Amino acid sequence: MSKSALVVIDMLNAYDFEDAEQLAEHVREVLPNVKHLIDRASEEDVPIIYVNDNYGDWNSSADELLETARRGRFPDLVEEIAPKEDVKFVIKGRHSVFYGTPLDHLLRELDVGRVVLTGQVTEQCILYSALDAYVRDYELAVPKDAVAHIHDDLGDAALRMMETNMSADIAPAGDVEL
Amino acid sequence: MSKSALVVIDMLNAYDFEDAEQLAEHVREVLPNVKHLIDRASEEDVPIIYVNDNYGDWNSSADELLETARRGRFPDLVEEIAPKEDVKFVIKGRHSVFYGTPLDHLLRELDVGRVVLTGQVTEQCILYSALDAYVRDYELAVPKDAVAHIHDDLGDAALRMMETNMSADIAPAGDVEL
Amino acid sequence: MSKSALVVIDMLNAYDFEDAEQLAEHVREVLPNVKHLIDRASEEDVPIIYVNDNYGDWNSSADELLETARRGRFPDLVEEIAPKEDVKFVIKGRHSVFYGTPLDHLLRELDVGRVVLTGQVTEQCILYSALDAYVRDYELAVPKDAVAHIHDDLGDAALRMMETNMSADIAPAGDVEL
Amino acid sequence: MSKSALVVIDMLNAYDFEDAEQLAEHVREVLPNVKHLIDRASEEDVPIIYVNDNYGDWNSSADELLETARRGRFPDLVEEIAPKEDVKFVIKGRHSVFYGTPLDHLLRELDVGRVVLTGQVTEQCILYSALDAYVRDYELAVPKDAVAHIHDDLGDAALRMMETNMSADIAPAGDVEL
Repeated sequence: MSKSALVVIDMLNAYDFEDAEQLAEHVREVLPNVKHLIDRASEEDVPIIYVNDNYGDWNSSADELLETARRGRFPDLVEEIAPKEDVKFVIKGRHSVFYGTPLDHLLRELDVGRVVLTGQVTEQCILYSALDAYVRDYELAVPKDAVAHIHDDLGDAALRMMETNMSADIAPAGDVEL
Repeated sequence: MSKSALVVIDMLNAYDFEDAEQLAEHVREVLPNVKHLIDRASEEDVPIIYVNDNYGDWNSSADELLETARRGRFPDLVEEIAPKEDVKFVIKGRHSVFYGTPLDHLLRELDVGRVVLTGQVTEQCILYSALDAYVRDYELAVPKDAVAHIHDDLGDAALRMMETNMSADIAPAGDVEL
Repeated sequence: MSKSALVVIDMLNAYDFEDAEQLAEHVREVLPNVKHLIDRASEEDVPIIYVNDNYGDWNSSADELLETARRGRFPDLVEEIAPKEDVKFVIKGRHSVFYGTPLDHLLRELDVGRVVLTGQVTEQCILYSALDAYVRDYELAVPKDAVAHIHDDLGDAALRMMETNMSADIAPAGDVEL
Repeated sequence: MSKSALVVIDMLNAYDFEDAEQLAEHVREVLPNVKHLIDRASEEDVPIIYVNDNYGDWNSSADELLETARRGRFPDLVEEIAPKEDVKFVIKGRHSVFYGTPLDHLLRELDVGRVVLTGQVTEQCILYSALDAYVRDYELAVPKDAVAHIHDDLGDAALRMMETNMSADIAPAGDVEL
């Protein structure tokens, strides 16, 4: 198995859009697993990379995104996984963590060949990022209880697509290798 | 509406892989619609761009891909939509039509802001290409009876994802604007 | 002429590397011109985009880069062009402003087709960014007295390459159109 | 030293543009060295990748580019280095061998970490390709007597830039490691 990195996607979120309520409910369910993955990665010296949308603000920093998220509708969903000092932070402007970002370069620098994706939204940014990892020949794990969906059926389909067509490991967070 | 291009994906295919039988059956169903779209685009002077996988052969040309496909298991699925002289042809090495290809540059040169995707496989290359078009801010149409899937449920889910999350027009080929 | 943006490159700099002294001397010479361009762009509502290296710190923000630069060897070279609230800020990890950044996407969103490059280093990041703009079909202006070089001969050659081979306008800052 | 590949740039050329005469003269001088590098690479099982411009023809193949070049003004400059069966061939639409091409992906697949650039034009496609290799962290060799320039001064400056700022090995072709 190649060296892994844990990629935490779009968890700094003000939840102020349509469907946010539905999403937040699912985030709440998976939050302990996300947090646990981050703790494990930290203990095991696996690189942790937060990749977060700038939500159209092209002058934002990790600190500002965190503040905006804390002032949003569900600060409890943010507080638990606020990035610690030692994580890397990449800001994205569109859905995929690879599009218009230095993530691919950073992963190569770190000699990482396998990405473990956690965060939201399963059938959107997670799926799109998984695909972009797959075409770039990264091995892929997407712990199914550490990603949050909006729609049940599309979330399920996304997980099956990642497993069937992208060779992703979708074991539960407790079982996933880091 | 922005200027459109018709993008014909992976139709030059030797169908020599697992699931090929199942895929071919669905290709056969949608083939008349694919062909009709190509004819309409040709008549209406809409740019037609074939984008086809090189299937790991890094020295392949359009002609060779066509010949390989004609010698494959289902030449009848190839003959009907063999690229005419005046189409553009882009070779890809991975699933998305945008990854490692000049397609984005070519579309900008042609002043195209909207892509109509046809071909195969709905829940794989079509979905991945749709996503890559969407993050690049292209408008998107995916005529649902001019794309071929392997698995019914994943094909359906892919179409719903494109409609719900990528604002794609998924009207039947007969109704889609070019 | 297409709509322009002013791109301010690597001006937040702690100047703690080899050749920094030589570079700083040239930066000091061009600084009034850089500042004047920024003021003009601000008055004329031309988008201003700072693009700055993260110098290997993958968790940096505009604020941190500014603070680091202010604590560096030549704070006077930084203070004058510290980014104002209304500018956009893009962080890069490598030399070109386009590599691993959302700049291309941002320019398209802003409907910008022409970039005016200012900052440092003429024969490195400026040249590389000019090239990447040129292959992406952006029109190009590089005011020759608003970019700072390290080596006289390479700086000169870079300006001639941009003029001869990339159709760049290299008029003095006072004459360049925004 | 990482595993190398030999990248042969824009040698299939009809030489029907301004400055072509001047360029052809320099190509003629370096041609034996280019050919010798290709032969050495072939003997030593070093991957050989031709990357050639499509000169605006988006439906071109290696064979067509070769035919066009043979019918051009200087077929003698083409014949000697016509690609053999076992080389890989990548078509580009713009100056850099990396822009809008699968080259980066192909190099990764081949586990190549070092590129040896040969061909034309030193102060244009060679320089731009060198830069794009450098920002992607490839090691770089540019045998100075196996690349052809148009302008003496810009060609010289390009070689110095590659040596000084991109850590390129610019030893003569006879001495360069493959």
